[in-house]
Amino acid sequence: MSLLTGNSHSLSEEEIDEYSDGTVKLRNSNIELMDQDILYHLALGSESHDLVEMFGDVKFVCMGGTPKRMENFAHFIMEDIGYKLPAGTQLQDISAYSYRYSMYKVGPVLCVSHGMGTPSVSILMHEMIKLMYHAKCKDPVFIRIGTCGGIGVEGGTVIITEDALDGQLRNSHEFTILGQTIHRPAKLDKKLARELKSLSSADDPYDTIIGKTLCTNDFYEGQGRLDGAFCEFSENDKMAYLEKLQEHGVVNIEMESTIFAALTHHAGIKAAVVCVALLNRLNGDQVNAPKEVMHEWQQRPQILVSRYIRKILAQHGQLKSLFGHQGSIKSPRRFKLVQQESQAHE
Amino acid sequence: MSLLTGNSHSLSEEEIDEYSDGTVKLRNSNIELMDQDILYHLALGSESHDLVEMFGDVKFVCMGGTPKRMENFAHFIMEDIGYKLPAGTQLQDISAYSYRYSMYKVGPVLCVSHGMGTPSVSILMHEMIKLMYHAKCKDPVFIRIGTCGGIGVEGGTVIITEDALDGQLRNSHEFTILGQTIHRPAKLDKKLARELKSLSSADDPYDTIIGKTLCTNDFYEGQGRLDGAFCEFSENDKMAYLEKLQEHGVVNIEMESTIFAALTHHAGIKAAVVCVALLNRLNGDQVNAPKEVMHEWQQRPQILVSRYIRKILAQHGQLKSLFGHQGSIKSPRRFKLVQQESQAHE
Repeated sequence: MSLLTGNSHSLSEEEIDEYSDGTVKLRNSNIELMDQDILYHLALGSESHDLVEMFGDVKFVCMGGTPKRMENFAHFIMEDIGYKLPAGTQLQDISAYSYRYSMYKVGPVLCVSHGMGTPSVSILMHEMIKLMYHAKCKDPVFIRIGTCGGIGVEGGTVIITEDALDGQLRNSHEFTILGQTIHRPAKLDKKLARELKSLSSADDPYDTIIGKTLCTNDFYEGQGRLDGAFCEFSENDKMAYLEKLQEHGVVNIEMESTIFAALTHHAGIKAAVVCVALLNRLNGDQVNAPKEVMHEWQQRPQILVSRYIRKILAQHGQLKSLFGHQGSIKSPRRFKLVQQESQAHE
Repeated sequence: MSLLTGNSHSLSEEEIDEYSDGTVKLRNSNIELMDQDILYHLALGSESHDLVEMFGDVKFVCMGGTPKRMENFAHFIMEDIGYKLPAGTQLQDISAYSYRYSMYKVGPVLCVSHGMGTPSVSILMHEMIKLMYHAKCKDPVFIRIGTCGGIGVEGGTVIITEDALDGQLRNSHEFTILGQTIHRPAKLDKKLARELKSLSSADDPYDTIIGKTLCTNDFYEGQGRLDGAFCEFSENDKMAYLEKLQEHGVVNIEMESTIFAALTHHAGIKAAVVCVALLNRLNGDQVNAPKEVMHEWQQRPQILVSRYIRKILAQHGQLKSLFGHQGSIKSPRRFKLVQQESQAHE
């Protein structure tokens, strides 16, 4: 078990970059020896499905908490990169039969829900990394699109995570493996973070910032909220804590970033976390912006990530070649008329 | 913040039982002072909804991982306790608009999905305990219905948790609150566990046992699996670890029990965890029983919990009085004929 000890330190740049053709190398030799690798929580298997055929073209893996948000993002990115589905088809939840995560594929973009909290993300990450390996995906980029509480930033602000910190403000994630506690660095790709930041526009009616993100295991007591089922600290204690976080450079709090950063880093996968703040925690605890406002806010990280995906696809000349063909609607006005006529004859 | 220290020890029996009329007392005086308490992840609010009217009659709160399993359980318990919905109605997911948890209500039984891992359960528990308080529910019993890996027990075995242990085999759950680490006892109701065990039948074609449950933060490395995206230990290390667990009295591993036990205990709510083993971890890592077999296995904890609910309702004379009225189907044979006739005339 002494093997474990060696893995708590950071991987050198050389180790991270040791890919021959950009495909994801698994740091687990057991997988190759298995008859079939069942990705149980994704409802996929390495021998039951042709994973190379299904997923070999994936370049971007976008993750977020709820199935609904990721379904929305799938439709949004489809529109935004001009990806057309064949006539008579619609997006299908690839992992529907797992009843756990939802997964939608829009050409090179995979949109997956990860649930709430680091354990839920951990299960998904193991299976997504194995999926990238089985599918022989080249240089995939993982981006988490989330919501968070802001610290000293207004609701609606877009926050790109610079470093993910755990409850003790360590830039790592704690794992318990065979009863032993180890830490793995929760490092995200700083170049990718800066690139995302550069894609914010002066015309955006909101701020996009980079800062440190606190990752907690609870939404109430764990984030210093006064409105959980229990609260054994005072408002003064809470404010002192939030101010301490702020002094430390923490600009937002969520519940998934350390595991997301630690496992992508350990796998040598480039990753970023982009969240929108639903409130400024220095002003309160309850999330009570109107539904329409919240809905618009949640689109903001999606818009930024979409700009990045469009830019990369364009750089590789893929934006036009792959998706430039005519869609099925020639005239939106006439399309609407046909729909109305059709409905009248039910 | 010294207040926190006092809460790491166990509550005395007297403290737990200090209910005047059986309603759930909140250990958070802030809630009473709030204009409205939004149960954000349940899509409910204390002033927007009449929570007493909606939930005041709830006696049993049953929780499980996936929305689908809890929807199935809702239909199963409805059939089993003979609860009839008014003509022309069907069950509705009460929390559909949260896109996070699913909640179905069948008379006195609330069926709620909690997602995977302790943080996801933590959020739900805070809001469910607050819901019990707002709704003035009397003596609600919380039961988690789950799946797990068995240790030394065959797939299909039903396991009632005696004690929930964390990764370091402590009978507690670790919380980080305002940067401080505290532990709360992960205690379940032993009398309830014995009562559930007593409802297993010699005719059941499977075993129902009581034992210790290990709660982990990951499904792969955290449970000593060799088939994750990473594996930095040998098969011998794994087996030595599982055998150590077995010597300690651990009969199963899952990912939710410590937080479920710790928060119900802290709230003075009677609780139990009943899981079915999907495999014997001493024989392997991958869950690969056929779908139909797994489906049948997952019904077993539901059957046990249903027996308990029926027993308690019968004891209070509520099984007949509440649900004894005639259903809408007088003759199943004629009902089928009418359905067939109707379909033929489409």
